[in-house]
Amino acid sequence: MRRAQRSRQETLTLRRQLIGSSCKLFYPNDPLKIVKARGQYMYDENGRQYLDCINNVAHVGHCHPDVVKAAHEQNQLLNTNSRYLHDNLTDYAERLSEKLPEKLCTFYFLNSGSEANDLALRMARQFTKHEDVIVLDHAYHGHLTSLIDISPYKFRNLEGQKEWVHVAPVPDTYRGLYREDHEDPATAYATEVKNIIERAHKKGREIAAFFAESLPSVGGQIIPPEGYFQKVAEHVHKAGGVFVADEIQVGFGRVGKHFWAFQLQGEEFIPDIVTMGKPIGNGHPIACVATTKEIAEAFAATGVEYFNTFGGNPVSCAIGLAVLDVIEKEQLQIHATEVGNFLMKLLTEQKVKHPIIGDVRGSGLFIGVDLIKDQAKRTPATEEAEYLITRLKEEYILLSTDGPGRNVLKFKPPMCFTMEDAKFVVDTIDKLLTDMEKEHMNQEKTSTGST
Amino acid sequence: MRRAQRSRQETLTLRRQLIGSSCKLFYPNDPLKIVKARGQYMYDENGRQYLDCINNVAHVGHCHPDVVKAAHEQNQLLNTNSRYLHDNLTDYAERLSEKLPEKLCTFYFLNSGSEANDLALRMARQFTKHEDVIVLDHAYHGHLTSLIDISPYKFRNLEGQKEWVHVAPVPDTYRGLYREDHEDPATAYATEVKNIIERAHKKGREIAAFFAESLPSVGGQIIPPEGYFQKVAEHVHKAGGVFVADEIQVGFGRVGKHFWAFQLQGEEFIPDIVTMGKPIGNGHPIACVATTKEIAEAFAATGVEYFNTFGGNPVSCAIGLAVLDVIEKEQLQIHATEVGNFLMKLLTEQKVKHPIIGDVRGSGLFIGVDLIKDQAKRTPATEEAEYLITRLKEEYILLSTDGPGRNVLKFKPPMCFTMEDAKFVVDTIDKLLTDMEKEHMNQEKTSTGST
Repeated sequence: MRRAQRSRQETLTLRRQLIGSSCKLFYPNDPLKIVKARGQYMYDENGRQYLDCINNVAHVGHCHPDVVKAAHEQNQLLNTNSRYLHDNLTDYAERLSEKLPEKLCTFYFLNSGSEANDLALRMARQFTKHEDVIVLDHAYHGHLTSLIDISPYKFRNLEGQKEWVHVAPVPDTYRGLYREDHEDPATAYATEVKNIIERAHKKGREIAAFFAESLPSVGGQIIPPEGYFQKVAEHVHKAGGVFVADEIQVGFGRVGKHFWAFQLQGEEFIPDIVTMGKPIGNGHPIACVATTKEIAEAFAATGVEYFNTFGGNPVSCAIGLAVLDVIEKEQLQIHATEVGNFLMKLLTEQKVKHPIIGDVRGSGLFIGVDLIKDQAKRTPATEEAEYLITRLKEEYILLSTDGPGRNVLKFKPPMCFTMEDAKFVVDTIDKLLTDMEKEHMNQEKTSTGST
Repeated sequence: MRRAQRSRQETLTLRRQLIGSSCKLFYPNDPLKIVKARGQYMYDENGRQYLDCINNVAHVGHCHPDVVKAAHEQNQLLNTNSRYLHDNLTDYAERLSEKLPEKLCTFYFLNSGSEANDLALRMARQFTKHEDVIVLDHAYHGHLTSLIDISPYKFRNLEGQKEWVHVAPVPDTYRGLYREDHEDPATAYATEVKNIIERAHKKGREIAAFFAESLPSVGGQIIPPEGYFQKVAEHVHKAGGVFVADEIQVGFGRVGKHFWAFQLQGEEFIPDIVTMGKPIGNGHPIACVATTKEIAEAFAATGVEYFNTFGGNPVSCAIGLAVLDVIEKEQLQIHATEVGNFLMKLLTEQKVKHPIIGDVRGSGLFIGVDLIKDQAKRTPATEEAEYLITRLKEEYILLSTDGPGRNVLKFKPPMCFTMEDAKFVVDTIDKLLTDMEKEHMNQEKTSTGST
């Protein structure tokens, strides 16, 4: 049955009535009603086109025809649970295994990144028989009870830190503990983890896992120094724990050079568990946990079944396969490298021009622009970032912020984002920052004049 | 890209290589490879047709064309997160609200029943500021860390019972504590919950929630005595807790007479939180939590956002709406009542004929047939049930068992299941049970003859 289209105001009113207010809207003061999307563009109810710089879920582009077709073909044929044999499940696991180091050869399919991280946590504990988890500060690993416990970004605002959770400093070489002037920040940050383990041991606690996003996103679009993961893994393994690489935001070729962001740490680094979500199904609810034979066997040894009603169904797997096909067919990794490099270059040029830009960092189409109030203290330019985001929306560009200071502009657009899009967004940022600087100078003049 | 079809054996080999062995197959000794399904029928790689008596996820029938069409239309248009306004989200919440008591007017959308129960748990705790949960014995509420803790079906085989979990006896009037000969089993079972609360209070513990499937499924297709939930809710509310009705298996008109199974308890009973999953999207990963304004506001009062990446996206909501449309258009509730009553009648006739059938219970197309070894002790006929299931598969009928004794045949077919299907499956069961009785008599004769 067709339903009447409502005005934006009517939809907003209904939403406020019916949907829990914990579920937030973008631009809460003036939210967008989006009715259509294609590639890197979204369209509102009046047909206005917005450039989407943030939706990493629409990985190969909004409504990619190949993905839509794969879903439709399989939806017409069969959608059932994984208690029956089906080629889509095994084909998909096989294709993913080709993308991963050989060691990560056992797969579990689920419906969300949160479900994946929860399973990783269960597995780590079952395998190690330990309880404790080390996470990076400001990390976010999902919305479930178990994951809020290991997400400082969330638990700091809720019940606080559990006794089995240990928080390590973010390996942020721009505003963290050890910065670009440190001779070996990778070792220094890894030593912090080692110290945490030692303190835990002294309390009689044992480490089950070190959990980290391969590139911390909510933490502020951080690129950990190369070698950090290897050194952390050494400490964690020595303590009998496992290394969980959360690739939910950053996997599937986004970083360009590699298919997985953890590979930026060097080809020899291999996590014990990898979790996948968001981009994996281009918007369809899919997620995956990949792990080693040993961990999978320890998990199975309890004899307790793991059954996920929708996980690994033939439709989800068909969609997952189609996404992999598009990434390869359209050479989106190479594209992400080229466009990402160009975008980084343009943004770095802006850094020279606008003192508010403190740092530009990234890899492929995962880029952070750290806005600061002053060069000395690198104070987060929170209000300026928020103002810029609002002004960009008026210019039909969707961008948002991350980081504990909500001052890091985050670029993680659909992978079909072009050089022209990059130029358009940076030109617009340039124009807006120039305007902001002029306004600021005018205000200073006025206030100087009035004193 | 088209992929070559593999033989069943090849698929099985690959599955054993690539998929965690905790993920079990139906008929593990001789699993089925299903390649197609339609309505209440599934088809293997050789085109053999199976009657599906168990897949309650394919609620309105496998691959229902209206649902497939709704998915395809929306997939072509837009699939994004709920941080933008979209009519599908609000329309869907509005439609669900029309199906529920007025009090349950705030909605959250997620990807799986497990995610829904986890959110319900978080909400109950946030609202009550209490920690403890009372669950029914043998209950299963999901595969997440937090839900294994409240699922005796799982935790009994794993780490055991947490100090904040309390297990109440299943209100099973056939093989439970208080049976059909008890004058008031509803009150008696509810008093058990009251006693648990009192014992908890004595230990200084406080109850956040009573969690129960409206009809316990894994527990053995149980129909709680009418009035039980009201009385439990009274005790739980008095203790400051909330009542969570898990409708993941049994909602959406399956019970025929009502849209929700909790309504079997009487129109005046209203839970504080209702969780939905499985049938809600006919196989697409959707789930929902409905609750009261008060609980939603308490949950929002922390200021912490609840964001679910895929939850409530326009595609999921379009599918959810299409499922509701089909239930109404095809009058599937009336159909479930009629076919369910007929199936119950046929099965009850068999009970007279075959002493192995101890009890036939159900409502609509949710029916349990309790197989027993003897009338006196009602000993679960576990092996016989397993044998029957295997023999039924050879007759191209998919049926399975539930209950702690794995002796309860569970019927929960797609809602398009017909009178003819009911007749076919009961005739086949009759034939197989007759054969089993003959074999048993022959064995007895042989053993008597040889002594």
